[in-house]
Amino acid sequence: MHELPVILFGVGGVGRSLLQQIVAHRSLHALRYGLALQVLAVCDRDGAALDPSHGLDDEMLCQIIAYKSAGGRISNHPLGGAQGDLAGIVDIAGRAGAVVVDCTATSATIPALLFALERRYKIVMANKKPLTSDQEVYDRLTAAGVTGGDDAAPMRHLGRSRWETTVGAGLPVIATLNRLVSSGDEVQRIAGAFSGTLGYLMTGLQAGQPFSAVVREAHRLGYTEPDPRDDLGGVDVARKALILARGLGRQLEMGDVAVQGLYPPEMDELSVDAFMQALPCLDDSFRGQVQSAAAAGKVLRYTAQVAGGACRVGPTLVDAGSPLGRLSGTDNLVEFTTHWYSPNPLVIQGRGAGVDATAAGVLSDIIELAYTA
Amino acid sequence: MHELPVILFGVGGVGRSLLQQIVAHRSLHALRYGLALQVLAVCDRDGAALDPSHGLDDEMLCQIIAYKSAGGRISNHPLGGAQGDLAGIVDIAGRAGAVVVDCTATSATIPALLFALERRYKIVMANKKPLTSDQEVYDRLTAAGVTGGDDAAPMRHLGRSRWETTVGAGLPVIATLNRLVSSGDEVQRIAGAFSGTLGYLMTGLQAGQPFSAVVREAHRLGYTEPDPRDDLGGVDVARKALILARGLGRQLEMGDVAVQGLYPPEMDELSVDAFMQALPCLDDSFRGQVQSAAAAGKVLRYTAQVAGGACRVGPTLVDAGSPLGRLSGTDNLVEFTTHWYSPNPLVIQGRGAGVDATAAGVLSDIIELAYTA
Repeated sequence: MHELPVILFGVGGVGRSLLQQIVAHRSLHALRYGLALQVLAVCDRDGAALDPSHGLDDEMLCQIIAYKSAGGRISNHPLGGAQGDLAGIVDIAGRAGAVVVDCTATSATIPALLFALERRYKIVMANKKPLTSDQEVYDRLTAAGVTGGDDAAPMRHLGRSRWETTVGAGLPVIATLNRLVSSGDEVQRIAGAFSGTLGYLMTGLQAGQPFSAVVREAHRLGYTEPDPRDDLGGVDVARKALILARGLGRQLEMGDVAVQGLYPPEMDELSVDAFMQALPCLDDSFRGQVQSAAAAGKVLRYTAQVAGGACRVGPTLVDAGSPLGRLSGTDNLVEFTTHWYSPNPLVIQGRGAGVDATAAGVLSDIIELAYTA
Repeated sequence: MHELPVILFGVGGVGRSLLQQIVAHRSLHALRYGLALQVLAVCDRDGAALDPSHGLDDEMLCQIIAYKSAGGRISNHPLGGAQGDLAGIVDIAGRAGAVVVDCTATSATIPALLFALERRYKIVMANKKPLTSDQEVYDRLTAAGVTGGDDAAPMRHLGRSRWETTVGAGLPVIATLNRLVSSGDEVQRIAGAFSGTLGYLMTGLQAGQPFSAVVREAHRLGYTEPDPRDDLGGVDVARKALILARGLGRQLEMGDVAVQGLYPPEMDELSVDAFMQALPCLDDSFRGQVQSAAAAGKVLRYTAQVAGGACRVGPTLVDAGSPLGRLSGTDNLVEFTTHWYSPNPLVIQGRGAGVDATAAGVLSDIIELAYTA
């Protein structure tokens, strides 16, 4: 049996689902892959539970899952303690073949991720923040730009990172992008709908509902962040677009992504409640856009577009009959138009959000890394 | 620079396109990945050109490409000679890290592929025949069923095979299937259209054209094999279905795949010309099927379905509004319905045939294998 040590940062929804899936699939991983995943450390914002020697057993993991579901902090838990810094945890708990998994949403993990790679460990990111900070950090985390040297080790560094779930949850977007690029195929355009929340909104608008009504309903159902402007502003989609663009080798920063949100910037000044109350003032504008779109055989979709050297995020008119046009509900979709995949693009679609599908994608990344040097 | 030795079996359309792409993308592979692909041997049916020490240079490769395009045999070429057997070529030319690439369509490569794996080399298959022979051969070639032992090497064996292009050319079908399975997701159903030729036919039927007319047109355009029964009989799709089913762990053989072709078996007795002349006798039947389908809001598609323990290939009625129903032309499409991807399946679609897209997929597989141990 081959041990696969795992160090987990982040015990929110995705982190907890990942732990549940690791526990649930022990037999599968042992029998089919000869792998025994060992969770050596679980870290939240300021605490960690560790067992570097044997790994936390399933009973401990289930305790942690339940405790975190109820809102506890690991530093207060019998199994845990205050942790100084994440790189220190990697230092203490890491061993050969370790996979450091970032299921947080903070850029504070960057030093620990870089430290892990220096130690020749492997990393899996569900977290977009590290990949959307400085270009240099992106390059180091993904080893893009590493040129071959006499030392084979730098090349192998390329095999030690995975970040599939940063775009489209478990959909194989990054894997496909990397395959296209590695084959030398010229990727001319990537276009997609990467927000289930905004897809839900667009479908509601298309059905004739007022913008304010759809946003309020989505908010009530928990489809949006507590402050819906976190979705409606498009920043989350912009991060995904940047990750895709950088995957093509474009040297861009967040500031280079042209983002058009679904509300005017002046509404950022309002409190959440005031914003929710003011929504109807946007209804007429959206009704008009949807109607003129329909008259032209088009529909409104909130998309990310990467083409040429540019990266653009915002409401877009697409042909009603295109894959993006036919997309409904919360599914994500990505189209790759390339030298070989044209005029019809390579299209991937399906559930693009949800903690469980995301955690399953993280687990796929972990298993893949078991086979890299 | 890290050398990546390649041994190629098969210099038909896909093999030649692969060599062209290897030559064309040397800079990309060097600069972005630190890889120098070296083609140590190129083998056709009964000949081989070798340079185990340095690899065949680009001028030699281009000569071979041109020579094979014109119909020559490598054994007659100045750079080549008669080759005894493919395993012998692997023995002579192979070295650490070598990737043996099978772009043939014969099961005669099986011994050489198994020998390569025993030598701890890596293999890429575009060839479906080895993966659709005995279950035991499939297991050994994909290392499925390898259980963990004290020796880590058997587990790592799992990382040394790729066969993405056996289903859907360059579409990431196998990679996605493997990711779903490795995460423990329960794959309930795989359904797809895996023949561009038959997709073209279905679209023509749906447009009201007689079956005989569409087949003759496709034949004239070179969309079908010289004997169109090789497409219309569904055996090629059946092989793909079997590969998918085996990817889920189903223990099936070709005889277990229920195949319904698009012509009655008695027409197998006819010569090709007689078959082409007899096609109109099938027109009424197809016209009737298409019309009653339309009346029920459905359309006819030639699909493979893997569900439960069964594997079924043949003409199928699908909802006109479903992804398969909206598919037109020669694109391929696969739907994965799983525990996490339901009710909406994970869908991948795009060009599923063509020597260049297939060769690009083979090249992606080769590059991925550079990072496995």
